[in-house]
Amino acid sequence: MAAKARIGILGASGYTGGELVRVLLRHPRGEIVLLTAERRAGQEMRTVFPQFSPYRLPQLVAIEGLDWAKAQLDVAFCALPHATTQKVIKELLAQAPATKVIDLSADFRLSDVAAYAKWYGHEHHAPALQQEAVYGLTEIHRRDIRHARLVANPGCYTTCAQLPLIPLIRNKAIELDEIVVDAKSGMTGAGRAAKEAMLFSEVSEGFNAYGVGHHRHMAELDQEFSLAAGREVIVSFTPHLVPMNRGILSTIYVRGRRGRTPEDLHAILLKSYVKEPFVHVLPFGETPQTRHVRGSNMTFIGVAKDRIPGRAIVISALDNLVKGASGQAIQNMNLVMGWPETMGLEQVALFP
Amino acid sequence: MAAKARIGILGASGYTGGELVRVLLRHPRGEIVLLTAERRAGQEMRTVFPQFSPYRLPQLVAIEGLDWAKAQLDVAFCALPHATTQKVIKELLAQAPATKVIDLSADFRLSDVAAYAKWYGHEHHAPALQQEAVYGLTEIHRRDIRHARLVANPGCYTTCAQLPLIPLIRNKAIELDEIVVDAKSGMTGAGRAAKEAMLFSEVSEGFNAYGVGHHRHMAELDQEFSLAAGREVIVSFTPHLVPMNRGILSTIYVRGRRGRTPEDLHAILLKSYVKEPFVHVLPFGETPQTRHVRGSNMTFIGVAKDRIPGRAIVISALDNLVKGASGQAIQNMNLVMGWPETMGLEQVALFP
Amino acid sequence: MAAKARIGILGASGYTGGELVRVLLRHPRGEIVLLTAERRAGQEMRTVFPQFSPYRLPQLVAIEGLDWAKAQLDVAFCALPHATTQKVIKELLAQAPATKVIDLSADFRLSDVAAYAKWYGHEHHAPALQQEAVYGLTEIHRRDIRHARLVANPGCYTTCAQLPLIPLIRNKAIELDEIVVDAKSGMTGAGRAAKEAMLFSEVSEGFNAYGVGHHRHMAELDQEFSLAAGREVIVSFTPHLVPMNRGILSTIYVRGRRGRTPEDLHAILLKSYVKEPFVHVLPFGETPQTRHVRGSNMTFIGVAKDRIPGRAIVISALDNLVKGASGQAIQNMNLVMGWPETMGLEQVALFP
Amino acid sequence: MAAKARIGILGASGYTGGELVRVLLRHPRGEIVLLTAERRAGQEMRTVFPQFSPYRLPQLVAIEGLDWAKAQLDVAFCALPHATTQKVIKELLAQAPATKVIDLSADFRLSDVAAYAKWYGHEHHAPALQQEAVYGLTEIHRRDIRHARLVANPGCYTTCAQLPLIPLIRNKAIELDEIVVDAKSGMTGAGRAAKEAMLFSEVSEGFNAYGVGHHRHMAELDQEFSLAAGREVIVSFTPHLVPMNRGILSTIYVRGRRGRTPEDLHAILLKSYVKEPFVHVLPFGETPQTRHVRGSNMTFIGVAKDRIPGRAIVISALDNLVKGASGQAIQNMNLVMGWPETMGLEQVALFP
Repeated sequence: MAAKARIGILGASGYTGGELVRVLLRHPRGEIVLLTAERRAGQEMRTVFPQFSPYRLPQLVAIEGLDWAKAQLDVAFCALPHATTQKVIKELLAQAPATKVIDLSADFRLSDVAAYAKWYGHEHHAPALQQEAVYGLTEIHRRDIRHARLVANPGCYTTCAQLPLIPLIRNKAIELDEIVVDAKSGMTGAGRAAKEAMLFSEVSEGFNAYGVGHHRHMAELDQEFSLAAGREVIVSFTPHLVPMNRGILSTIYVRGRRGRTPEDLHAILLKSYVKEPFVHVLPFGETPQTRHVRGSNMTFIGVAKDRIPGRAIVISALDNLVKGASGQAIQNMNLVMGWPETMGLEQVALFP
Repeated sequence: MAAKARIGILGASGYTGGELVRVLLRHPRGEIVLLTAERRAGQEMRTVFPQFSPYRLPQLVAIEGLDWAKAQLDVAFCALPHATTQKVIKELLAQAPATKVIDLSADFRLSDVAAYAKWYGHEHHAPALQQEAVYGLTEIHRRDIRHARLVANPGCYTTCAQLPLIPLIRNKAIELDEIVVDAKSGMTGAGRAAKEAMLFSEVSEGFNAYGVGHHRHMAELDQEFSLAAGREVIVSFTPHLVPMNRGILSTIYVRGRRGRTPEDLHAILLKSYVKEPFVHVLPFGETPQTRHVRGSNMTFIGVAKDRIPGRAIVISALDNLVKGASGQAIQNMNLVMGWPETMGLEQVALFP
Repeated sequence: MAAKARIGILGASGYTGGELVRVLLRHPRGEIVLLTAERRAGQEMRTVFPQFSPYRLPQLVAIEGLDWAKAQLDVAFCALPHATTQKVIKELLAQAPATKVIDLSADFRLSDVAAYAKWYGHEHHAPALQQEAVYGLTEIHRRDIRHARLVANPGCYTTCAQLPLIPLIRNKAIELDEIVVDAKSGMTGAGRAAKEAMLFSEVSEGFNAYGVGHHRHMAELDQEFSLAAGREVIVSFTPHLVPMNRGILSTIYVRGRRGRTPEDLHAILLKSYVKEPFVHVLPFGETPQTRHVRGSNMTFIGVAKDRIPGRAIVISALDNLVKGASGQAIQNMNLVMGWPETMGLEQVALFP
Repeated sequence: MAAKARIGILGASGYTGGELVRVLLRHPRGEIVLLTAERRAGQEMRTVFPQFSPYRLPQLVAIEGLDWAKAQLDVAFCALPHATTQKVIKELLAQAPATKVIDLSADFRLSDVAAYAKWYGHEHHAPALQQEAVYGLTEIHRRDIRHARLVANPGCYTTCAQLPLIPLIRNKAIELDEIVVDAKSGMTGAGRAAKEAMLFSEVSEGFNAYGVGHHRHMAELDQEFSLAAGREVIVSFTPHLVPMNRGILSTIYVRGRRGRTPEDLHAILLKSYVKEPFVHVLPFGETPQTRHVRGSNMTFIGVAKDRIPGRAIVISALDNLVKGASGQAIQNMNLVMGWPETMGLEQVALFP
């Protein structure tokens, strides 16, 4: 068997970084050879994530001063903060143009230069790469991803909303101006930075919406929904925080177009995903729970009738750290590297 | 000072029963003289709710065989299961017509005989009382409640949805056919019956919708919204379960009518509730969290702009066991008895 | 009725500060006239604790520059960090010697100058006040507290361990060299500072010990147990973190001395606390749960037989923010001010 | 490659049954051909555990009427209630004597006929099999397990307490009469039966001990500790419930014998487990957290100094459903079948 591919994880001390390590430790074709973490440079991974204590892993290093050519990475996963990302990936690809990059930040998700500037308040620092990057919602853009050098891995909220909605939009099956996405996320989606609002005692035993009316993820939804529709589509989208670690659930309110019934919408989704290993459409009328996809790369989708005639409720659930981040990133790596798409991602959900 | 009013709690072993005891133990004008619990009859309240161990309370008894005339109750709170309720209240009021009854079940909430039969699948067993009962959403029906003998205390989901929506509907400020109520509830709303789906390990670390498209509480919403609008109003309503004990949060998507902006909607709510002790409207753009009303009789309401022009997101939060059940029941008792409305309900929210 | 006492809370933005406000808002004899919070100075209390949004409270100010004589405080609660505390209280009492101070920090709990220096690594900055301070475990030191100007409110872990153990030690009923205290605390005991280890995702769905072998609270236990025993007593003490907000439970393993049985130990505790409003000894063999004291100033104590002859298991539970901190502080204020000891503290536990 | 082994799971609708399915779905050498569940017979596994919805699994059947000879099972996992177990296994092995049985109940853990009768209040129904059964604590009894036909898989509490203590006892390194085991378990350890005490609202946001002084698991500890010591050993053992799904943590208080220091105890454990794939001893002074073994078959052990000279605190953590039940069962199956011991069990812990 061939030597294993050399894999680097930039930003290994956050939750998506840790999740990449978890999955990659069991991946038959890849080997982790580089882990970076600015503030924890010089430490062992076990001090950052004690669950890796029994495993051999490279020591954490700082990005500053790394020689990307010498690093000889086949694949680099980039789980760095906004803005830093652009600079690091630009340098990496300049020094090591053959490395495949899977970026988990939002920096390369918007392909439109103007849209980026509007949402982020500044020009993109790597506009050529912005054009080159392929949006990594695997089930929708699989063909392009296979040939990409730089994949912009989608956000967790947006993956959860797009998987059920894009087939419905593409099939012109729903009214485009009445879509409401009420989304709920577990806390790991907010990252590992120490903030008062994310303390256990601020979060447990309660529930709230946040970013009402102006969440950044909306730009990504606008882009992809408009692309699928062939016209501008803007949806209502409200994110909420659930006192749980993992999971996103989107409750989506839609109206069928030209007499499409909820059953019709269900049939479209069933057909769209019948061969997909990581998207599972439940029988009509059943709706998913986040706990049943926990730790797996699976998305569950359900469709039910609203009691208002002509309207349907579509609900999707996934694990924000797996299909919503690191799992989909590895799914994309598998495509980019020409490996079986499900490799290393077969883990069954952990419930309870 | 006059003797204290004699209070009975029928169905004291459930969560709303326990919550009534918690609040009434500190009420200056009432004294608990009767506690019933069918399966726990003969036991002390402390075996059912150990937190009451330091307090003197009557022993639990069965309803069967009680003489309501002898019981001489001034007020009876009824927290019994559906159907049983109708029979018990009918007997109670026949034997003790001067007793005031606050019913926490759904049995007397629908005033229309046909609507009741449709939703519950059978004729009402006490149709005369059904006509007599006053719907107990205090802030909306205060005047009628003062003179009621039988108050039908509203449901928790419906209290949370009605308080923000009724002023908007009455003021003809929103489109009536596009209202979406995405509701989330803590687990105490599901009661204390031992069911697999309510076990800790089935509920924690996850999130899900339930009863999608056909939840019984909808009948109550239909009745009250239609009453407020003067025409039939049907809203989309999806309940979800949050892994927390207490709290309901409703995220409500509305479109302003005839140019009403989100700011206009906020102004209407602010004006409607400015003098209400238990409804607090947050500054425009701020949205509430359930944890900040926990254990109190308070409802918090926030209004924010949707990014779709003309649309607003209205969010309300309350404690399902207090304002959503036992607190509002005591608020109604205070009205019925002619006491200050806030008496015994001044407890400040417990956070964290 | 006399004017209300003027109360200041120094350090109002932490959890014990918020809990003082919660209880004092309902206290019939006190009025909050001063709230300090260094980093939040200039803000309204509602931005720090939204649950207080419906109430009128003074704006948060910085301590720096306050004139304690002008402040005319009758009582100052001090919930400041270690070391800052000594400096602030020294100045306060120099400028306003008639103000009563209830200190919730650990700074004045150790009365021995050498013990303080050993555990904290430096000389005490206010040694005269250190000598003046009275240790505020109310049930044990009530008589001294009544006459105190400066009360050193006990820690939450130590209150929970002392209430069951001190009567047993004083009665020479247990072996002093075999006491094991295995203590478990909810997360609010760790404070509100933003630290990675206290994030929701680091804490929920898990359990761990911390500070094994060298927790600072041990000094306080050593002092009080040795005082009660009349000789040096050192216990094994291991604190653990429970994924819950409020509550401490101590599982205490003891061996009866000179033939004392577990039943004898129970009888001693029952007799010691029979008249105490805030300490409740359960029937022999029953053991307490933290949830049944949540939000109340109550401590529950249970005693059971170990199956090893001669050994007993004593378990105590309290709410770390109430009896373990702010509730006991107000209990002490009541004593110091000559008010009924239970005033404002009658709240019944909130369960579920 | 040879055909896969035929595996049956008796009692597949409980949590240990579900966990067996989760792990076996990814096991390269085994195939699930039989799933039983009395009350759910005739249903699909996906209705009992929706996370298995995307997988093909046999329909649930009742045990009654099964022909064990025809079933041709290579391995039967038995996750049935107490007492039923004995009857079923007796029949199974009578009809299909070549089937290997891994029993997850407590029915075959006690090898002494009298001890069984004392703890369970009746004679064992299959005394010959009771003698044949091998106690399945893999790391301690590996050699015997390899040749066993019937393995009595240990309990979760007892696995967690034995792994750290048995090497210390065997090495005569600790005093045998002063061992205190303070154990804490997540809720899945209590099973999936619908009981009021296990409802979310009864369990979350609280902590308590249970079965104080008389927990059944003690018999298993007595047997194994006495065997290791060569004399009778009885330890203090108190189980507690933690509001989390998975995980057991044991805080164990011991005194070194004949001058053994905490460092000596650590060295013994390190040496005992250095080659074990599923027991990981942390560096001296570090202590484990349950979250870092969640979903894995790993046990983490830490040793720290107590501040009382000569005493040490030993802490062990494992996932009660994996190493504490189904994972160890599969580890034992691997041994019994002559497969690599770690096969199918390599999953890395899921944190957060």
